[in-house]
Amino acid sequence: MRTRFQQGLDELRQKLLRMGGYAEQAVDRACQAYIDRDLSRCHMVLEGESQINATEREIDELAFDLLAMQQPMAVDLRFILAVTKINSDLERVGDQAVNIAERVMDMVELPAVDLPVDIPRMAAASSAMVRRALESFIEGKAELAQAVLEMDNVVDRMRDEAFIMLVKAMNTQPEKTRQALDALLVARNLERVADHATNIAEDVIFWVRGADVRHNAGQDNDVPTHQVAEGHQ
Amino acid sequence: MRTRFQQGLDELRQKLLRMGGYAEQAVDRACQAYIDRDLSRCHMVLEGESQINATEREIDELAFDLLAMQQPMAVDLRFILAVTKINSDLERVGDQAVNIAERVMDMVELPAVDLPVDIPRMAAASSAMVRRALESFIEGKAELAQAVLEMDNVVDRMRDEAFIMLVKAMNTQPEKTRQALDALLVARNLERVADHATNIAEDVIFWVRGADVRHNAGQDNDVPTHQVAEGHQ
Repeated sequence: MRTRFQQGLDELRQKLLRMGGYAEQAVDRACQAYIDRDLSRCHMVLEGESQINATEREIDELAFDLLAMQQPMAVDLRFILAVTKINSDLERVGDQAVNIAERVMDMVELPAVDLPVDIPRMAAASSAMVRRALESFIEGKAELAQAVLEMDNVVDRMRDEAFIMLVKAMNTQPEKTRQALDALLVARNLERVADHATNIAEDVIFWVRGADVRHNAGQDNDVPTHQVAEGHQ
Repeated sequence: MRTRFQQGLDELRQKLLRMGGYAEQAVDRACQAYIDRDLSRCHMVLEGESQINATEREIDELAFDLLAMQQPMAVDLRFILAVTKINSDLERVGDQAVNIAERVMDMVELPAVDLPVDIPRMAAASSAMVRRALESFIEGKAELAQAVLEMDNVVDRMRDEAFIMLVKAMNTQPEKTRQALDALLVARNLERVADHATNIAEDVIFWVRGADVRHNAGQDNDVPTHQVAEGHQ
C-alpha cells in the first residue's frame, strides 16, 4: 500500500514532467515562429508563460508540503530538492522561449534576408537536451545525464560558428545588420536553453550519485562525498 | 541556548552571504577588467569560478543536512528552500561574470574604440541589485525585495538604449562592428545579472510572505496563499 507521502512524490514527478513538456513546447513553438515568421505562434508563447509560472509555483508548493509532511528519508529528500532546482531551470527555459518570440516579433518588422545560420538545427539540439535531461532525471540515470553534458559542447560549437558567420555578414552586408543581430541573439537564447539542460543534468548526477552514496553508506561501493561533488558545477 | 539546528541555520545564512560576496566581487572585477582592458583581472574572475562552485555545493550540502537532521518548522523550511534557490542564482551571477571576462579577453585583441554605451553605469546598477536582493533576504524584508524588482526596469531600459545605440554604430561605422557586438553582449550579461537579482528578490517575497502566512495562520494579518503566490514569477 502506498502512503500519502509516496503518492505525493509521484504527483511531484508527474507535475515536473508536465512542466518539462510546457517548457519544451514553448521552445519548439518559438523556433517554429522564427522559421515561418509567424506572429500567431509568438503570441502563443507569450500567453503560455503564465501557465509555466503557475506550474512552477504549484511544484514548489507541493515540494514544500511534502517536506513539511514528514521526515523524508535521505533519498527522498534529495529527490525533492532536485525537483525544486530543476523546476527553476525549466521556468527559465520558458523565459528563453519568450525572449526568442519577442526577437521574432522584431524580425518580422524587417525585410526577410538569407543569413548564414542554421537556427532550426540549433533549436532541435537544445530541445533534445532538455528532453533527455528530464528523462535522465525521471529514470534516475546519471549516465544519461552525462550524455547531456557532452551534447552541450556541440551546441556551444554551433553558437560559436553562428557568431563568426553572422559577424562576417554584418561586416560585408551592413544592410542585414539588424536581422543578423536578431539571429545572433536567438542563437544565444538557444545556447542558454542548452545551458539550463546542462544544469538539470548536473543536478541529476549530483543528486542521484549523492543519494546512492548515502543510501549505500559503509558498503564497498561507497564514494567519498567530495568526489561525488566534483560532478556538480 | 541555541540548538545545533539553529546554529546550522546561522551557518547557512553566513555561507550564503559569503557566496553573495564572491558573486558580487566577480561581477565588479569583470567590469573593471572591461573598463581598464585588464587581462589580469579577467584571469582572476576565471580562477574565482571554482571557489564559487565549491561554495554552492557546500551550501546545498548544508541545506540538505539541516533538512535531514530534524523536522523543520514551516518558517525554517521555507528559509532553507529559499537558500537553495538563491544559491543557484548566485552561482549563475558568477557565470555571467565569467562570460564578461571572456568577452573582455576577446575585446583586448581588437583596437580600442569609443562606443556609445555606459557599461560602468549598467554594471553599478546590476551589482547594486544583487547586493540589495541579498540584504532583503538576510533582513527578511519583502519591501526591500520589492524595490529590487523596480530597479530591474531601469537596467532593462539601459540595455535597450545600449542595443539601439550600438546597432546604429555598427551600421554607420562598420569597422567597429566586432567591438560594438562585444559591448552589446557585455550589456546582455549585465542584464542577466540583474535578472538573477530579480529572481532572488522574487524568491524573498514569496518565501518571506509565505513564511509569514503559515507562521501567523489564522490571525488578522493572514493572507490567502494564492494571493501570496502572485508575487512569485
